Amino acid sequence: MKHLLSIADLGRDGIEEVLDLTDKFVEVSERRIPKVPTLRGRTVVSLFYEDSTRTRLSFETAAKRLSADTMNFSVGTSSVKKGESLRDTVETIEAMGVDAVVVRHGSSGVPWQVANWVDASVINAGDGWHEHPTQALLDCYTIRERLGSLADKRIAIVGDIKHSRVARSDVLAFTALGAEVTLVAPPTLLPPSLEGWPVEVSHDFDDVLRKVDVVYLLRMQRERMTEALLPSLREYTATYGLTRDRYRLLGDGALVMHPGPMNRGVEIAAEVADAPNAVITRQVANGVAVRMAVLFLLLAAEGDVA
Amino acid sequence: MKHLLSIADLGRDGIEEVLDLTDKFVEVSERRIPKVPTLRGRTVVSLFYEDSTRTRLSFETAAKRLSADTMNFSVGTSSVKKGESLRDTVETIEAMGVDAVVVRHGSSGVPWQVANWVDASVINAGDGWHEHPTQALLDCYTIRERLGSLADKRIAIVGDIKHSRVARSDVLAFTALGAEVTLVAPPTLLPPSLEGWPVEVSHDFDDVLRKVDVVYLLRMQRERMTEALLPSLREYTATYGLTRDRYRLLGDGALVMHPGPMNRGVEIAAEVADAPNAVITRQVANGVAVRMAVLFLLLAAEGDVA
Amino acid sequence: MKHLLSIADLGRDGIEEVLDLTDKFVEVSERRIPKVPTLRGRTVVSLFYEDSTRTRLSFETAAKRLSADTMNFSVGTSSVKKGESLRDTVETIEAMGVDAVVVRHGSSGVPWQVANWVDASVINAGDGWHEHPTQALLDCYTIRERLGSLADKRIAIVGDIKHSRVARSDVLAFTALGAEVTLVAPPTLLPPSLEGWPVEVSHDFDDVLRKVDVVYLLRMQRERMTEALLPSLREYTATYGLTRDRYRLLGDGALVMHPGPMNRGVEIAAEVADAPNAVITRQVANGVAVRMAVLFLLLAAEGDVA
Repeated sequence: MKHLLSIADLGRDGIEEVLDLTDKFVEVSERRIPKVPTLRGRTVVSLFYEDSTRTRLSFETAAKRLSADTMNFSVGTSSVKKGESLRDTVETIEAMGVDAVVVRHGSSGVPWQVANWVDASVINAGDGWHEHPTQALLDCYTIRERLGSLADKRIAIVGDIKHSRVARSDVLAFTALGAEVTLVAPPTLLPPSLEGWPVEVSHDFDDVLRKVDVVYLLRMQRERMTEALLPSLREYTATYGLTRDRYRLLGDGALVMHPGPMNRGVEIAAEVADAPNAVITRQVANGVAVRMAVLFLLLAAEGDVA
Repeated sequence: MKHLLSIADLGRDGIEEVLDLTDKFVEVSERRIPKVPTLRGRTVVSLFYEDSTRTRLSFETAAKRLSADTMNFSVGTSSVKKGESLRDTVETIEAMGVDAVVVRHGSSGVPWQVANWVDASVINAGDGWHEHPTQALLDCYTIRERLGSLADKRIAIVGDIKHSRVARSDVLAFTALGAEVTLVAPPTLLPPSLEGWPVEVSHDFDDVLRKVDVVYLLRMQRERMTEALLPSLREYTATYGLTRDRYRLLGDGALVMHPGPMNRGVEIAAEVADAPNAVITRQVANGVAVRMAVLFLLLAAEGDVA
Repeated sequence: MKHLLSIADLGRDGIEEVLDLTDKFVEVSERRIPKVPTLRGRTVVSLFYEDSTRTRLSFETAAKRLSADTMNFSVGTSSVKKGESLRDTVETIEAMGVDAVVVRHGSSGVPWQVANWVDASVINAGDGWHEHPTQALLDCYTIRERLGSLADKRIAIVGDIKHSRVARSDVLAFTALGAEVTLVAPPTLLPPSLEGWPVEVSHDFDDVLRKVDVVYLLRMQRERMTEALLPSLREYTATYGLTRDRYRLLGDGALVMHPGPMNRGVEIAAEVADAPNAVITRQVANGVAVRMAVLFLLLAAEGDVA
């Protein structure tokens, strides 16, 4: 594996390889000194064209636990503002001697471009509405950890599917591992076409909740209001929010997931976010271990051990 | 010791334990390679809701000298801007696997809230007008280093007491160690009530200067003018600034202290800030050693040595 | 060598010492683990009053490859905004225990002031229109690497000489090593006097291109338009840009250089920037090794080896 650009590229075997390796790094993360020398002397750079402290810190923490050096190319204060092209920025960073570039960008496909330009490994940390593969991997790992496997599990993904790279990557990953996915969203927040998506669609959240093993809530962006895609947050919450009442429809052991950051009181009630089967902080913890596994697969040399 | 939230919690014995341990870390800091492996693999995160590069760098330097990893959760570019609650931010950070959270926040009491939510150790790096315990500890250490002890020393704290967490923590720490504290300030910049504060108050700065062993000047915030709490900076300086003339009233060996950053020409004359008994940069140097001692006490395991 | 403030101070022998040592660090940078323990426990701080992510990351990468710790004193969020003087900022940083301060500032001469105030080593990373010595060193190294030596080489520096610290440092370094330098620029972008500069001046770029071994293009700042120093970017490109047509005038083996970030299509055509004899990304790579050599010379103790 040279790059991690999409779940689509990774396929079922690739996903399972990452998840199996993640077990090892979950174990490392629980040691008193959660650090291994595996990637000593390697450099991992974050190149984020959109702010995301949580994702950036998760990758940096993963890199540091593997003893890699980290650099943060913060776009806000960089030569990008001076009109430098993406390609020149990337080639400059590579020339300084980096081994992996973690890219987040508002436009779909940018990580593929970057991978064409550099010899370093490229990790897609979110490109436009397209993909966010490490999020899907940590979501799979968290479900597998709690439910044993994704095979034949029923998973509902709820909310703004249309603008969500998390939804796209999750659908691909969950179905690759054998789960059945139902999308629950207002029609304005579904993609214009779902042709080829191996999913069902429902607008009856209550009915779906009674049947699922996992309900995955997406963050509702406030800007969807101003774009007139939603009448009001209150109405969204009434129909698609995981309220306390609606939460009671879930079966025992069904998981509540969210990629964060949450809008408590909008897509998820505050009490529901703290319920025992809400595994939202466990997703965050597993995110570090999954990213350790990805960095290991991309950067470790023959013979390196975790 | 699990957290460092306030001088009030620490008490006399706790303060002295930190100061005694600081001796060791001052010695480490003076080595050619000022670094010990004590906290290798531990992670210290800075969570600053108010900018303070100097305090943040002091903690980071302390952590690095103990070989801990550091992370900086910079609020300006984080999910906090996206409406995430303080609690969710803190739980996310903890889920990534941190051992200590250094918190600065504009509201009093936030570090206690954070300590309730996490298993990690919490250090208060300033909460509103309330406390700033590591500042008080480094101030005590600096006085003890120069004057041998705080017992029976006379210390004047001068300036905007009302809005100063430094003043609050210093009063508690100085008096716990046996010093006599006099507050010198215009009435508008004193707290509405001083009931229970073990201090004297004076508005005659010249008279106070003749008697003290230490004069501790607080930073005058320019925004106090617009709030109409002060007629003008010039008038403040005339009455409460440590001018060259007024400086001559100090006895031999009396110390001049300031938490920084200074407004030279306002609360302190430029030449006074550079006088031999002004120990302001020594306070900064001791700040790193004090913070090493605090991190050691909170995070080192049985058997770890400095 | 205590500080690196200017090429003028360094002189021919100093430049050659740095370049000879750089060979060693180019070799280190090409190892699988490009890291040596030479400066373990030393701290290098970046103090940048002007944004420059690329220069700052180059220094940080260099420091990390030598196993030094790095700190970033980001001026935008620091006590500088609160009115702290440069001197107090610098003394505060030094008091925390740093070994080298890498300074960039918009005013000429600031690194000399800083060097007067601190015991730490000071590296000038660009002061106003004055000097940028590590850029000149990496430029010399890159030419030497490709052409064997600078002696008797003909080098054209093209563009906004007047406002360019790169041009100033390059003229000094290139001529110290025996090269002949020709400046090519519109009269409004030349310094008011070139008395004492050991250079020729030409306004006939085509003629110059036929004779040179190296053409060094400076970045054209867009603000020069609004200052009425240039009629239009299009006209600048027509007369002083290295267009595809003009590029064909260069002899075989002549190098194309640029300090970055490039304005492709303005001072350099996009295709020219990617031509085989354009060594622009090699300059970036050598920049890290040159800065390792500089940090080594300033900070390594007797007996330390690279």
